Amino acid sequence: MAANTLIHHSRRLLSKNQNKLLNDFLKNTTGNNLQQLTRCFSVSTAGKMRFVQFQLKSGGPQHIGAQLTLDGDVFDISAVDSSVPNSLLKFLSEGNGVVEKAKRIVAAGKSVVPLTDVNLLAPITKPDKVACIGLNYSGHCDEQNIPYPTEPIIFSKFSSTIIGPYDTIKLPSISNSVDWEAELAVVIGKTAKCIRQDQVDEHIFGYTVAQDISARDWQKKRNGGQFLLGKTMDTFCPIGPAIVTKNKLNAQNLNIKSYVNGVLKQNGNTSEMIFKIDFLVSYLSQIITLYPGDLILTGTPAGVGVHRSPPEFLKPGDVVETEIEGIGKLRNPVE
Amino acid sequence: MAANTLIHHSRRLLSKNQNKLLNDFLKNTTGNNLQQLTRCFSVSTAGKMRFVQFQLKSGGPQHIGAQLTLDGDVFDISAVDSSVPNSLLKFLSEGNGVVEKAKRIVAAGKSVVPLTDVNLLAPITKPDKVACIGLNYSGHCDEQNIPYPTEPIIFSKFSSTIIGPYDTIKLPSISNSVDWEAELAVVIGKTAKCIRQDQVDEHIFGYTVAQDISARDWQKKRNGGQFLLGKTMDTFCPIGPAIVTKNKLNAQNLNIKSYVNGVLKQNGNTSEMIFKIDFLVSYLSQIITLYPGDLILTGTPAGVGVHRSPPEFLKPGDVVETEIEGIGKLRNPVE
Repeated sequence: MAANTLIHHSRRLLSKNQNKLLNDFLKNTTGNNLQQLTRCFSVSTAGKMRFVQFQLKSGGPQHIGAQLTLDGDVFDISAVDSSVPNSLLKFLSEGNGVVEKAKRIVAAGKSVVPLTDVNLLAPITKPDKVACIGLNYSGHCDEQNIPYPTEPIIFSKFSSTIIGPYDTIKLPSISNSVDWEAELAVVIGKTAKCIRQDQVDEHIFGYTVAQDISARDWQKKRNGGQFLLGKTMDTFCPIGPAIVTKNKLNAQNLNIKSYVNGVLKQNGNTSEMIFKIDFLVSYLSQIITLYPGDLILTGTPAGVGVHRSPPEFLKPGDVVETEIEGIGKLRNPVE
Repeated sequence: MAANTLIHHSRRLLSKNQNKLLNDFLKNTTGNNLQQLTRCFSVSTAGKMRFVQFQLKSGGPQHIGAQLTLDGDVFDISAVDSSVPNSLLKFLSEGNGVVEKAKRIVAAGKSVVPLTDVNLLAPITKPDKVACIGLNYSGHCDEQNIPYPTEPIIFSKFSSTIIGPYDTIKLPSISNSVDWEAELAVVIGKTAKCIRQDQVDEHIFGYTVAQDISARDWQKKRNGGQFLLGKTMDTFCPIGPAIVTKNKLNAQNLNIKSYVNGVLKQNGNTSEMIFKIDFLVSYLSQIITLYPGDLILTGTPAGVGVHRSPPEFLKPGDVVETEIEGIGKLRNPVE
């Protein structure tokens, strides 16, 4: 986004007095100073920030980065501040101030890396838990002709199933019915135990896009009815490309879509959730403790493969794309 | 164990020539030298070693330790070698040579801490997975009057449910039917993917005692039939007191018991497992990748509370003890 456009948009958020001060400042500011100002300005007013984990294409260890916009350049947070751990999970676990620390670094405008120079990785790895909600979109229940659940159904994936936003989904030789499920994932920011619904927001760090890849034979016909194995095969949890902080993202009204080989398969909206995010996080927190970095996959809308007529499943060479409005798009080849 | 007794036992493992060399050596060795020799000797011949995580009662960070015998003094591995990480999970993840490194440290006889000076912690924390096998003892199927499963039933607990061998099991207010399940836990030592049964042994690091604490209402009547929530409430996975390395432990023939308030409730033997450890690990490795530190809880024998007449459940003030021959005993108060 051009500097001037950004200032124009952000101005509406300022008070009359702030606008006057800004006018005075701009009169005496040009070129690089203006860029720097724009960034400070954008960071302090926009509120929303995108956190990523990445590796430079030139090599080196994993870094934490921040973007101000989808497809924007990456501020290399790890490079600027050596006290920042190189995993977002650890960063979040350190407690409050993660976003503020990142904002200061972004505002300082140092270590900006073009997006084309980095490989984006899964934005969180090795969380304590990946908790998933079953049957949480009205359309997904309707397509199976089953009643809406009266309380959430929770299952899980092992953390090691997580892969990056552009990584390959590997079809296991032991299944012939691997399916897609686009999902909005909640990322916990602050430990939550027995919290009320009105307290949930302060415990959420942000949101990311997830695919709850599912081997339907193992989920439904094997393992004594327990979903676990069908849901937790290696590579069955692509996430990313960024975690978008919660501010100004209306998580209960986002379009959510998946495509296979460019053909639209799921086309829903997070407003269709039967149990809303506030309820889900509060509910889970009555039963278990949620920790920073924990992922909650909030269910999938209608349009999965197994309930199509005839059923469709993933095959080698396919490409699965998963997109949520305001967050971004995963693009995972299948082999 | 006294030095002379240990030598006596270990001698049977030596060749005739080794015994002769030892005789010659002993003639010229006394006092401290003898103690040191005994330790080297014991470490090199016994093969079996006990790994613990502990904190000094005087304070300080978590350390890794080793014991040569149940209730024996603790060799403070972390204190001797600063290159050793302070978590067994990381130590195992570093690859081969963990046991050998520990043996060298123990043989050197430095930093021995009396057991009375330490608090033993859970010997593994934050593994990628805690995988559990349902209905894996013939007696546990018989007491429910259900047929033996024809393939393993796998469910899971979140890693954060793990607590130490003497920590408190906290009864959640949302359940009134919390039950015990004594289990042998396999600790993975080396990454395993698609391995055969005859390869399993080299991927196992050792064994520990586990309690698969279960809220029966949530396991059986809630959550749409998915076991997860009933199995994964906070504090529902006491483990320890040590991980015993696999050598010379016949894991398929160990007495396994649980007591509540000193009354024997479960009294089985690991020989009753329907699916044996070699099969289970190989089976799981066909479906998912197993990583160092991963725990596999191998099922529970007959005698759980829910299938007693009348049913019995845990209440505040109870004490659950879980014991496996050759490994040790957990002792967890309930509140």
